[in-house]
Amino acid sequence: MEFFKADIAIDAGYILCLDESATQIEDGTILIKNNNFQYVGSRLDRGQYIATDYIDAKTSVVLPPFYNQHTHPSLSLYRGLGVDLSLHDWLQKVIWPLEKRFCNPEMVYLGSQLSLLEMIRSGTGAVATMDFHTKAVGKAFEEAGLRAYLGEAIFKTPTPACQSPEDGYKYIESLLTEYSDSDLIHIYLAIHAPFTSNPALYKEAAKRATQWDILTTSHIAETKSEFEWSQKTYRKTPVELIESTGILDTDFILVHGVHLSDSDIKILSNNDIPVIHNPQSNMFLGSGACPVSSLLEQNVLVGLGTDSAASNNNLSMMREMQTAAKLHKVIQKDASSIPAPQALRMATANGYRIYRHKLLGQITKDYKADMQIIETADIHNIPSYDITSTLVYSSHSEDVTGLIVNGKIIMKDREIITLDEGGILDRCKKMGLEIAQFMKNR
Amino acid sequence: MEFFKADIAIDAGYILCLDESATQIEDGTILIKNNNFQYVGSRLDRGQYIATDYIDAKTSVVLPPFYNQHTHPSLSLYRGLGVDLSLHDWLQKVIWPLEKRFCNPEMVYLGSQLSLLEMIRSGTGAVATMDFHTKAVGKAFEEAGLRAYLGEAIFKTPTPACQSPEDGYKYIESLLTEYSDSDLIHIYLAIHAPFTSNPALYKEAAKRATQWDILTTSHIAETKSEFEWSQKTYRKTPVELIESTGILDTDFILVHGVHLSDSDIKILSNNDIPVIHNPQSNMFLGSGACPVSSLLEQNVLVGLGTDSAASNNNLSMMREMQTAAKLHKVIQKDASSIPAPQALRMATANGYRIYRHKLLGQITKDYKADMQIIETADIHNIPSYDITSTLVYSSHSEDVTGLIVNGKIIMKDREIITLDEGGILDRCKKMGLEIAQFMKNR
Repeated sequence: MEFFKADIAIDAGYILCLDESATQIEDGTILIKNNNFQYVGSRLDRGQYIATDYIDAKTSVVLPPFYNQHTHPSLSLYRGLGVDLSLHDWLQKVIWPLEKRFCNPEMVYLGSQLSLLEMIRSGTGAVATMDFHTKAVGKAFEEAGLRAYLGEAIFKTPTPACQSPEDGYKYIESLLTEYSDSDLIHIYLAIHAPFTSNPALYKEAAKRATQWDILTTSHIAETKSEFEWSQKTYRKTPVELIESTGILDTDFILVHGVHLSDSDIKILSNNDIPVIHNPQSNMFLGSGACPVSSLLEQNVLVGLGTDSAASNNNLSMMREMQTAAKLHKVIQKDASSIPAPQALRMATANGYRIYRHKLLGQITKDYKADMQIIETADIHNIPSYDITSTLVYSSHSEDVTGLIVNGKIIMKDREIITLDEGGILDRCKKMGLEIAQFMKNR
Repeated sequence: MEFFKADIAIDAGYILCLDESATQIEDGTILIKNNNFQYVGSRLDRGQYIATDYIDAKTSVVLPPFYNQHTHPSLSLYRGLGVDLSLHDWLQKVIWPLEKRFCNPEMVYLGSQLSLLEMIRSGTGAVATMDFHTKAVGKAFEEAGLRAYLGEAIFKTPTPACQSPEDGYKYIESLLTEYSDSDLIHIYLAIHAPFTSNPALYKEAAKRATQWDILTTSHIAETKSEFEWSQKTYRKTPVELIESTGILDTDFILVHGVHLSDSDIKILSNNDIPVIHNPQSNMFLGSGACPVSSLLEQNVLVGLGTDSAASNNNLSMMREMQTAAKLHKVIQKDASSIPAPQALRMATANGYRIYRHKLLGQITKDYKADMQIIETADIHNIPSYDITSTLVYSSHSEDVTGLIVNGKIIMKDREIITLDEGGILDRCKKMGLEIAQFMKNR
């Protein structure tokens, strides 16, 4: 019998591997050595291994971490401002004035820390961001120990961080240099949206992304007014518009996709373009519901994101997954739409595929050791007849007790190891008072 | 200066009184004497009163408890069975076979206890139920100390508890006798639904309810197929059908109302019929979305319920309120639809109005002492710019730390005082294994 020397050992009630055959192991053990899963299988005796750390998750489920596939970490400081407003009012009357006044590297760093606390606590291990002053976002993510795709938002107009798109590309180049050796932090190219840029900008972005060999992203077809504006201005839908720029020939990730024509969906399918669905933000802003069922029928890969805490107002991927599963049942008037296993994959494994991570997104020997632990012993999860249904329809964010990323314990027994929770919250509360004062005096 | 002798004193960060003028008290004190609020106002010094119990809620909000305005407590034992099925499949393939095998007073009692644990933990202080073997429900509620309207479901066919409607009325009569002196438990008359009864049954129910002077309720217009069946069978919409029976002349509370014509809404408005909206269950079962905005425009009073944990799969009114606020924004494509203060009232104060409780549903001197305490110091609530927005868009069920009903502490510091949580959960887990075995062997 093999004897293991491990760094971390976890005894789990269930392991949801989320591999291709959807392996479920009841009463299993996971061993982690360095950054990888060394053993994933049935329960080992304590005599079969030694491990530096031991985690008892016998009443819990272990599965890949949630992947928050689209969010703006800095905006958490504006959580709850501008509620009950549409996207364009929310941006123009609340978010952009706030960013004009407050968006600087210190604020972005603090907002990112707040977002990271919330995401870690709710089991998110990987995040795709779009912000200004991305170096400050990266600093917060590096300290937290999460995986990330970081995007500096490019506009045709000056942003709080960059005077021009050209300035933005220089900023991205310096990010690429800074994170070239990072295991956890990746850089991609983010054009904000069609209505804040122009076709030439997407064309230039496609050229740069090809040159740098990086992924690209943009908010596309989020609102009806964007769709109508695009048709009026360019005689093209937003998807047709960006297709004409060549950006879909890069590894492009489309965010939102609420307003898509049938032929838009075909374009996305033909070009293998994944879509990041942000159900709660789209609901909150009254934008509409992404046609997820039609996308899935056309084999478009769909992932989930929370968008920012200022249009949600939460960063829990658990809640996002639960909302997605229910929203499309009511939109389609079909209770079998987005069944539980599909919702779970959208929130986890699909993210790792969409962002092209290697050896990630499943709990499998020799894969990178990223996992979360979700307790299922609390009132609202009892009884449990199927663990996936329990997670998707009953569990709460607070049920997440542990998070490991790249073999490192980020949270244990609900305690965040890598960040100073108390200190960050104190600074956020103080900053909240300053922001409230600004809003009052406007 | 007045000196108070109180039973319970609470220092609160915020008090949301939910009275007509929406009074918000920052840094307030509440005193409770016997079953009533003795003082509600600005912070008192500790020298201004003596109190047997003291609760420090200085980083929390105090407000009326959630009112779960429609649920089936016994069904929590089936939580997670029959997921991703439509209402009619869910009933016929899963719930009714389960009830045929398992529905007896012991099971109903255990299921109700499980539901009560979950509802107490998430801040619900009053509940309207529809079940079989209602005496077992009542026993669980009396032990828990919650307010309730209890309804024994009447079908045209035999039920697990009653051989015939006549048998059902006798059962209701005995309930009325049993609870005639109760401060907390009330009985109302529940006809299951048009498709499980007939017009004569509603007519008879109207007669009995008038005779007994009690409220009435029924699941009406929940699915499209019910709406179509009613039109085909009776050439009437479900609302027109029950209107023709005279039941709307009683104090009738309509549950669901997903499929309503414009003239149905007028009928409800003209007859002052309130509607209990169950957004998550209607989403889960793919039934559709109640036209809440149209109901509100016609001055119909709308409340919220979770429906059962088997079609939700949760009994948190916090989640229900949050979903309602977001669902109607996306259905109406209008971010201002169901703004936060309205969502909060639907989940709380409206329930007390709809069920015609006196001196309840607001935090006001001399009103009955029902209140919940919600902590707002955790990561996901920071910063907080408006306490109502925080509750409706950011808070989690776990933020509820305390519950007082009729001057009695039901939960303190997240510990349920009135029920034996561990024992109930153990019995539920065992029963879950038996139910799983039955489902496997079918």
